[in-house]
Amino acid sequence: MLAYFGPRGTFTEQAARGFATPQQELVPFDTVPAALTATRRGETEAACVPVENSVEGAVPATMDALTEGEPLVAVAEAVLPVRFSVLRRPGGGPVRTVASHPHALAQVRHWLAEHLPDAEVVATTSTSAAARAVLNGDFDAAVSAPVAVRHYPLEVMATDVADVRDAKTRFLLFRRPGPLPEPTGHDRTSVVCTAADRVGALADLLAELALRGINLTRIESRPTKDRLGEYRFYIDLDGHAAEPRVGDALAGLHRHCQHIRFLGSYPKAEPGGVPAGNDAFVSAAGWVADIREGRGA
Amino acid sequence: MLAYFGPRGTFTEQAARGFATPQQELVPFDTVPAALTATRRGETEAACVPVENSVEGAVPATMDALTEGEPLVAVAEAVLPVRFSVLRRPGGGPVRTVASHPHALAQVRHWLAEHLPDAEVVATTSTSAAARAVLNGDFDAAVSAPVAVRHYPLEVMATDVADVRDAKTRFLLFRRPGPLPEPTGHDRTSVVCTAADRVGALADLLAELALRGINLTRIESRPTKDRLGEYRFYIDLDGHAAEPRVGDALAGLHRHCQHIRFLGSYPKAEPGGVPAGNDAFVSAAGWVADIREGRGA
Repeated sequence: MLAYFGPRGTFTEQAARGFATPQQELVPFDTVPAALTATRRGETEAACVPVENSVEGAVPATMDALTEGEPLVAVAEAVLPVRFSVLRRPGGGPVRTVASHPHALAQVRHWLAEHLPDAEVVATTSTSAAARAVLNGDFDAAVSAPVAVRHYPLEVMATDVADVRDAKTRFLLFRRPGPLPEPTGHDRTSVVCTAADRVGALADLLAELALRGINLTRIESRPTKDRLGEYRFYIDLDGHAAEPRVGDALAGLHRHCQHIRFLGSYPKAEPGGVPAGNDAFVSAAGWVADIREGRGA
Repeated sequence: MLAYFGPRGTFTEQAARGFATPQQELVPFDTVPAALTATRRGETEAACVPVENSVEGAVPATMDALTEGEPLVAVAEAVLPVRFSVLRRPGGGPVRTVASHPHALAQVRHWLAEHLPDAEVVATTSTSAAARAVLNGDFDAAVSAPVAVRHYPLEVMATDVADVRDAKTRFLLFRRPGPLPEPTGHDRTSVVCTAADRVGALADLLAELALRGINLTRIESRPTKDRLGEYRFYIDLDGHAAEPRVGDALAGLHRHCQHIRFLGSYPKAEPGGVPAGNDAFVSAAGWVADIREGRGA
């Protein structure tokens, strides 16, 4: 079973479908923490949750839920373009009302102004709740994730609807800690670090990456809720923990942090290889081993 | 006139009221970019917009809108606790439906489960739209910002409602560039930097701060939409641009960045002074001036 942040028919389900094996049952959960807890308890094998620019929110909830409780590690990543489908009842009349999550409505304002200028806009708790409400006859059209039509027998009025063409939303698949996915040469590693709230704390952490030629792909700070005077940093970097230089850098972060949690090494969803650059680390480690053994100088 | 991200009766209006002079008219705008554009054009004197952890979204929109178009600078900050009021019609019957923005509903789940376990939960496009709908008789109760009762003659069923006690949301007041607010000794400076997507780019930026003993209070990365291979960093730091060390650090950032935009120096909304530490910069600058003049060594 694969848990995901529900309800059915949202972008998160769409990402979860991409992760699931054909036999794997997909189970929606009401909240991100609930999906992660089910996986921690072994009730589901994995959990798919949004981690960046989610249409329906919940990203801060994801980050907090990953930092608290038993550790989980990401094993796969998905990046979906934020493009909506507009759905209506087959053979319905004119569209007088159009429903969706407020964030989705905000992302299709221009489209609605052009194509359904007279329709009243109505909020729902999710993009999928809008599709269900259209099916129930509450509203005439829904702005939904493309996957919604799998669940609701609605007619697709339009696809690929988005005012901003390049908006994307990112998901990770989490499991309980175990063997890491094999390195592929285009991997990403995620960690969350807690550092003292002192001048230069983050500069020290990032120097550990820069010194080893490791590219940072995302950083976000968040004050810790429970302990004052501490900062938490979510860091994504290029490379896999199995690589010598990434292992060295993680050890460097560990030395500088009051607390560090590994959130996984997994193949990047989008193209973009990571320059190898491990040879120098391997030969340097060999040299140190040699001088320690009296085999060189 | 003071523009704010509307509608009326939301947390953003509450922040805007804190900023406004008694004579100043408050004008809600449909979107964050529209509020900022009105200020850029001089149609309003200032714009109040959410910049962090907003209940009703729009924070990525704020950041993008600040980076594009004519520059605006922040002159004041407000931090509001995320505590809702639950509103109903005076003398209404039992509460069978309760409405709000999905993000607000997500933040009062436990309260609703305890106090209104049988009520149906309904989404609206904003916390304030929920209050208006209750007034219209569409729903029985609304989960709203406390300021909503100023606009809608509703009865307050509960105040200070929040599952998470320490959630906060942050707003800034932007004006067209002009004289900076006077330094107060507890100021914050915001900048957005665009740096090449190369290893160590951010480490170099942060070293400019750390070297000068300047504390970073927030950092967030965002890929630039228009130019590939570049990263954008939103950085908040302790201190005022008028201080020697902050000026030096900003000059350092300017040298390292492909593009940098000053987003303002303004008093921090929450207590927490910034250690002075400018004396060493003043005496060092004096020493350099002296040796240049042949007055010392």
